[in-house]
Amino acid sequence: MAVTLAELARRFQGKVRGNPEIKIERVATLDAAGVNDIAYVGDRKYLPLLARTKAGAVILSPADAQNFTGTALIVDNPHLCFAQAAELLHPSAKFTPGKHVSATVDPTARVAATACIGAHAVIAAEAVIEADAYVGPGCFIGAQASIGARARLIANVVIGERCLVGADCIFQPGAVVGSDGFGYAKDGDKWCKVPQLGRVVLGKAVEVGANTSIDRGALNDTIIGDGVKLDNQIQIAHNVRIGENTAIAACVGIAGSTVIGKRCTIGGQAGIVGHLEIADDVHITAGSLVTSSITQPGVYSSSLKAEPVEKWRRNAARLHQLDELARRLIELEEKLK
Amino acid sequence: MAVTLAELARRFQGKVRGNPEIKIERVATLDAAGVNDIAYVGDRKYLPLLARTKAGAVILSPADAQNFTGTALIVDNPHLCFAQAAELLHPSAKFTPGKHVSATVDPTARVAATACIGAHAVIAAEAVIEADAYVGPGCFIGAQASIGARARLIANVVIGERCLVGADCIFQPGAVVGSDGFGYAKDGDKWCKVPQLGRVVLGKAVEVGANTSIDRGALNDTIIGDGVKLDNQIQIAHNVRIGENTAIAACVGIAGSTVIGKRCTIGGQAGIVGHLEIADDVHITAGSLVTSSITQPGVYSSSLKAEPVEKWRRNAARLHQLDELARRLIELEEKLK
Amino acid sequence: MAVTLAELARRFQGKVRGNPEIKIERVATLDAAGVNDIAYVGDRKYLPLLARTKAGAVILSPADAQNFTGTALIVDNPHLCFAQAAELLHPSAKFTPGKHVSATVDPTARVAATACIGAHAVIAAEAVIEADAYVGPGCFIGAQASIGARARLIANVVIGERCLVGADCIFQPGAVVGSDGFGYAKDGDKWCKVPQLGRVVLGKAVEVGANTSIDRGALNDTIIGDGVKLDNQIQIAHNVRIGENTAIAACVGIAGSTVIGKRCTIGGQAGIVGHLEIADDVHITAGSLVTSSITQPGVYSSSLKAEPVEKWRRNAARLHQLDELARRLIELEEKLK
Repeated sequence: MAVTLAELARRFQGKVRGNPEIKIERVATLDAAGVNDIAYVGDRKYLPLLARTKAGAVILSPADAQNFTGTALIVDNPHLCFAQAAELLHPSAKFTPGKHVSATVDPTARVAATACIGAHAVIAAEAVIEADAYVGPGCFIGAQASIGARARLIANVVIGERCLVGADCIFQPGAVVGSDGFGYAKDGDKWCKVPQLGRVVLGKAVEVGANTSIDRGALNDTIIGDGVKLDNQIQIAHNVRIGENTAIAACVGIAGSTVIGKRCTIGGQAGIVGHLEIADDVHITAGSLVTSSITQPGVYSSSLKAEPVEKWRRNAARLHQLDELARRLIELEEKLK
Repeated sequence: MAVTLAELARRFQGKVRGNPEIKIERVATLDAAGVNDIAYVGDRKYLPLLARTKAGAVILSPADAQNFTGTALIVDNPHLCFAQAAELLHPSAKFTPGKHVSATVDPTARVAATACIGAHAVIAAEAVIEADAYVGPGCFIGAQASIGARARLIANVVIGERCLVGADCIFQPGAVVGSDGFGYAKDGDKWCKVPQLGRVVLGKAVEVGANTSIDRGALNDTIIGDGVKLDNQIQIAHNVRIGENTAIAACVGIAGSTVIGKRCTIGGQAGIVGHLEIADDVHITAGSLVTSSITQPGVYSSSLKAEPVEKWRRNAARLHQLDELARRLIELEEKLK
Repeated sequence: MAVTLAELARRFQGKVRGNPEIKIERVATLDAAGVNDIAYVGDRKYLPLLARTKAGAVILSPADAQNFTGTALIVDNPHLCFAQAAELLHPSAKFTPGKHVSATVDPTARVAATACIGAHAVIAAEAVIEADAYVGPGCFIGAQASIGARARLIANVVIGERCLVGADCIFQPGAVVGSDGFGYAKDGDKWCKVPQLGRVVLGKAVEVGANTSIDRGALNDTIIGDGVKLDNQIQIAHNVRIGENTAIAACVGIAGSTVIGKRCTIGGQAGIVGHLEIADDVHITAGSLVTSSITQPGVYSSSLKAEPVEKWRRNAARLHQLDELARRLIELEEKLK
């Protein structure tokens, strides 16, 4: 696919500076781009590359454009424009509607004529696959589950029984939705399983990363709001609720019944314990552990940072004496009064 | 399914206060329950909901029942009674015995007539599937592996060759048992793989969460005791041994050859390094790192807790100076002697 | 398989002390070994077992051999010799070349005659499977992906479209290569997906653990060097580059665009944030968080260690006052000047 720079400007509300008739075929990085590529400044540290890029055009903010003499597509939000240009120039591979001959589709399932069911996929009884959805090879859709229009399940994805997937959701390989929550009652020394009767309900345009798992609710549902983005290797426990447009990085764990607001961001490997409420617009740094509810927007952290081990061990050893050290400080203060 | 409250009381050794002939059809939460539902107080903070619940009956301890005037099922362990009532009222879907036409079962495998092998499941040579076991869609059972009676593998579960699964085990989707342990010998700069020759042996009534992995032993076996419950996204390394009825929350990692006692609980995202021994009845809080053996029962922690980032950064910066600060404190103390 | 001790010595450049004609059939641990087994000292703490082992022979370093009177195979690197002996005595199960009748192989894919495609595996259009490769049951190989000679994908492994897998790579079950990177542009409150157009390129002899995920690059590729070993449950984000022979333990997360050197080791549950550079020969301890680039070889840490919870809580509470405590210390110092 190739479009003129003028056409990109028209679609994405930008201004061309330079030759609007240049043909753009691909997106590329500043250093790898050629004459038919469009690039952008992915990070401020790459600004010096602007001077020597061979890109046919560069997507720039009005401010950055002042420091560049080449052909530019000037827009208010270069990152967004780049994403949209990439989508236009490199559309997802089209699939052919229909069921692969090796797929297993229960006769009581309802599969839209425009949906695609991949090789060895399994669609259980009374499941619903809406128009233009793609259920890739090796996926399993449980009984009475529903997959929204245009949803894409790449491969080996499991959607448990009765779970609801909204339109335009994307599931990377190995994602699991609707596993049982971790619920047990103590019976002497033993654990007695508490049946997990709720569902997982995902809104529209949710993305679920590779090998991420989302447990079904115990009684009520686990709820993932519209536009939530979940990276790989994440664990969402039963009855968690996540507000719209919250983004969660890889390896995060969220324990049961915690409610997270809208537009939050949670850094990689952070953890949030159960039964908390996290307000809208809260940002948690990577590796932090949240142990109490957060009622105010803002950035929260308990992240440490690695240093050379000899130095760290001395500091960490003192941390394990810290209460005593603090008491001795207080004693000194009192002596000096 | 519907039973009278009297019948529930009889089965679960409880006392009815109020109308014993009331029909109970479902379990539900206090706020969602209707006249044919039975509820319980899942957490002390929900006690205020008792006053206005519309539940047909509530499962209560004798103490809590004193503060409630409605129909009650009074038992010593309400959580356990609730779990049992849920199991009774909402039994797991029955499966039809037999092999799905699309399943691949090696002619040398032995599959009980009452077992169910799902669509596209693969049972390798000389594997054994015991009575009433359920091997769901897309599961793989390796050569000479054995699946105990009534075990349930939901979907896309992998049990490696020669691994043994006890009766009544449950595997959530994406669980992997019997992957190779991470064993290498140094050969100059390179790593030479050490063949992993052991098995994983799981006792009875073990539950393994979604996308959890358990490595086979290097020479001897990795051993998971009866009644152990493993949540999602857990890593159990080679030659780990876990005692009976220990419960491990999501995202925990346990390194090689560590031995964990009975009745332990390990909080989410905790880590335990290799070659340790952890006594019975040890409880590790979420996010803690265990770096030495624990010989006494009790609660152990190295959890931090997130606070507003400006405050945290000042404290964390001091942590990286802590050894020096401690020395200065000691100096002051000496000056003042 | 059985070989004489003399034959083992010849193959692995060792010296026999004792009877070279003894038949060795298996490797075993010191305490479990019998007269036809060869053992070694896996950890210094097992040295006392030497005195009473019943092993036919023990692989020992020249130094350890001085404290042992039994039959010994004396080599410079006992661990490596043990790994090689184990590989010789316990070779991986041979597979039969060819496509399983239930596998789905696109007619435009190129599969070597000596490769094996397992039950219900899916090989998409224009994919290439080289000689002697093993693609196990339930694996999915995306369009135009390439699997090198002798690579082994155990079961339910996903290799995304266009990704390249070098010769002799091993993939444990549930591994995912080529999932989309976590890339979004802000569009008001919403996240707009940035198409992930790069690939994952794995060198030779890479091992990828169970349920580990490696994202494809956004524009350029994610690159995993020759001989890299990745344990289970690891997350490698888009555009990460990992140098040759680096080994990463389970549950590690590496954020986008970070570059890691050669011969590094990263302990379990460690995290490395995005856009960093880590030098060659860097070692990170378990549970550490790396938040800035590391330019010098060495060991780096921010690991804490669990202690009894009452003690820890007092210390941790002081950590949250640490900046204030430090200021008070400085005040005291000034008063005393």
